Amino acid sequence: MNNFQYYTPTKVVFGKDTVKEVPRLVREYGGTKVLVHYGGGSAVRSGLIGQISELLTEAGIPFCELGGVKPNPRLSLVYEGIELVKSEGIDFILAVGGGSVIDSSKAIGYGVANGGDVWDFYDRKRTPQATLPVGAVLTIAAAGSEMSDSSVITNEDGWKKRGCNSDVCRVKFAVMDPMLTMTLPDYQTASGCTDIIMHTLERYFTPKGTMELTNGIAKAVIQTVMRNAVILRDDPQNYDARAEVMWASSLSHNGLTGCGNGGNDFATHRLEHELSGMYDVAHGAGLAALWGSWARYVMDNCYDCFRRFAVDVMGVPDEGTDEEVSLKGIEAMEDFFRSINMPTSMRELGLDPSDEDIEVLADKCALATGGKVGAAKVLTRDDFVKIYHMAK
Amino acid sequence: MNNFQYYTPTKVVFGKDTVKEVPRLVREYGGTKVLVHYGGGSAVRSGLIGQISELLTEAGIPFCELGGVKPNPRLSLVYEGIELVKSEGIDFILAVGGGSVIDSSKAIGYGVANGGDVWDFYDRKRTPQATLPVGAVLTIAAAGSEMSDSSVITNEDGWKKRGCNSDVCRVKFAVMDPMLTMTLPDYQTASGCTDIIMHTLERYFTPKGTMELTNGIAKAVIQTVMRNAVILRDDPQNYDARAEVMWASSLSHNGLTGCGNGGNDFATHRLEHELSGMYDVAHGAGLAALWGSWARYVMDNCYDCFRRFAVDVMGVPDEGTDEEVSLKGIEAMEDFFRSINMPTSMRELGLDPSDEDIEVLADKCALATGGKVGAAKVLTRDDFVKIYHMAK
Repeated sequence: MNNFQYYTPTKVVFGKDTVKEVPRLVREYGGTKVLVHYGGGSAVRSGLIGQISELLTEAGIPFCELGGVKPNPRLSLVYEGIELVKSEGIDFILAVGGGSVIDSSKAIGYGVANGGDVWDFYDRKRTPQATLPVGAVLTIAAAGSEMSDSSVITNEDGWKKRGCNSDVCRVKFAVMDPMLTMTLPDYQTASGCTDIIMHTLERYFTPKGTMELTNGIAKAVIQTVMRNAVILRDDPQNYDARAEVMWASSLSHNGLTGCGNGGNDFATHRLEHELSGMYDVAHGAGLAALWGSWARYVMDNCYDCFRRFAVDVMGVPDEGTDEEVSLKGIEAMEDFFRSINMPTSMRELGLDPSDEDIEVLADKCALATGGKVGAAKVLTRDDFVKIYHMAK
Repeated sequence: MNNFQYYTPTKVVFGKDTVKEVPRLVREYGGTKVLVHYGGGSAVRSGLIGQISELLTEAGIPFCELGGVKPNPRLSLVYEGIELVKSEGIDFILAVGGGSVIDSSKAIGYGVANGGDVWDFYDRKRTPQATLPVGAVLTIAAAGSEMSDSSVITNEDGWKKRGCNSDVCRVKFAVMDPMLTMTLPDYQTASGCTDIIMHTLERYFTPKGTMELTNGIAKAVIQTVMRNAVILRDDPQNYDARAEVMWASSLSHNGLTGCGNGGNDFATHRLEHELSGMYDVAHGAGLAALWGSWARYVMDNCYDCFRRFAVDVMGVPDEGTDEEVSLKGIEAMEDFFRSINMPTSMRELGLDPSDEDIEVLADKCALATGGKVGAAKVLTRDDFVKIYHMAK
């Protein structure tokens, strides 16, 4: 039982037709001129951007648009957004999309409110002290950025993918209508479900003590996403399943699933950041490809958690040695990943990195993490190499 | 699956020695002169008020003190607090205590920031638009007021106990050190655990649909409190158990355990408010005395929830009719209440109300609720009478 801080100020407005609340919410948080920031064409084609434009226009709230955010959102567009916000006198950013769009919006907010080069915050040279207020209309359930303190940006100069965590960037409001996620391709839905589960798993395994209530909530999040990911595999238009997954995306990464636990791990995330930075694979799929190898590599450092995970979350019989039971729990999670067509190795992800490629990945991960990462087990560059090899 | 809003902006700082964070947090939320508001002598005798006074003095933050908050906090002291805050130019209220002190602080905040008679908000004549910022140092795990939108005040003129719910009054920060709850009398600890469980149960039963993730979280909260209430019955100094119960107190009543469900019930709370208003019994004990009768009275209107509760939360075998399984679930919860020395009837609570007394209780409850209350089943005055009789 460790001390902790929990802070999730985001106002969540959840359910059908909640998009029409956007103008009221923008006003509530002081917005008088809005940047509507979004990604590729789907938000436009679906009519969502048009609907939001109409709502803002009807409410008399002026706005500009900036689309074009890509998965693994790019620094160059963030710079463009910062200039646009400054030149147009914008005081509120509305992110319409998933984690990439929200992360890009947070980065623009940092850039405008703090001055200097915004990359400094991602390169750990400075700490952000302020941001422009950001609201979100969520269209992808996955990253949890709508309630998290996290923003991850990719710098095309060297394809460095770096995160910046700060309570400063917590989104003011998140409008979450599960209907908006109905048209996601199956692979993206499954990849999102994996990411959601992983945000809880990254907080679950630690030798430094956990909290019973947190373990119970983690179990609820993981099992709910597992059940509903399978429902969505067979019935993508199932509203209730979309809703369960969407709400889980927020709770899994807003801090709740780590309260009182002995530190967040996030080694699998950091190893995956280098994969998707170099190969541009879907983040959730990359996590699924690496997690089992990471788990087998670190499990002997916290058998208590791995055994509890196997028995309490995955339903493995509580019989056998710690190693046996832990392995069965890891295998059960990998079976689940496969059941929703997620990869459990880099080969299944469509990658076949050479030994040299793996050295490069490990180098980049070491650079990004400062050479050390992990709570279940503290890992260094040599460990990264071994895990990447195990995951081939 | 119903639409919902979730908003819990309170910054929680949880764990040992967190009281020393108070001056920093007061400053973070703009406090320059503080009212330290507390209850009876225990906060003084334990040295906590002295410690906070020292911390504020060292930090150069001026403050006044106002003690004397009683369980079922009184309107007269709220009026006194409002005058003190105004005359001293105070801009931040620090509640040091449990739900009564926090509720009293919220009421003072309403009174100062809105003008007019603060009782209007509790009497449903006006809606509060603002408050003075309130921070909390929690010393009792029970009411969940440290993260809830609720404040309940008793007007001595007629002994009317009324609640006011508004997001406006959400506490800015809550310092939660489980060590501060170590010295609570056993009866108060058990009563607090009951109140915590009840805040989840009040959101659990509804015929209008629930959310799987919310049900899972509710199960985690209820089972965690049940297990740790028994640990504390036998070992009141168990830090981890104190911590589990304390964190559960916040999560059980901050809205999380009702997300997506078809409305909050709170009939048991309203029936109990009249009991503790008239007889000044411990709130949690009053809830335990009434809940089983309420549950038997309403269960046929939402057997889905009562059956799930019995099987999933209470471990009742999934065999038999809805009525049989539901009754076993209710009995199992009453067995738990008895196991921690809580009453399951008014007689066990030490009360023996006459038929006339029950008519008065029902009248008062009808007046306070506007004549209707409940989500599991909508109840009116005649139902109140029947439930009070069942609970004798």
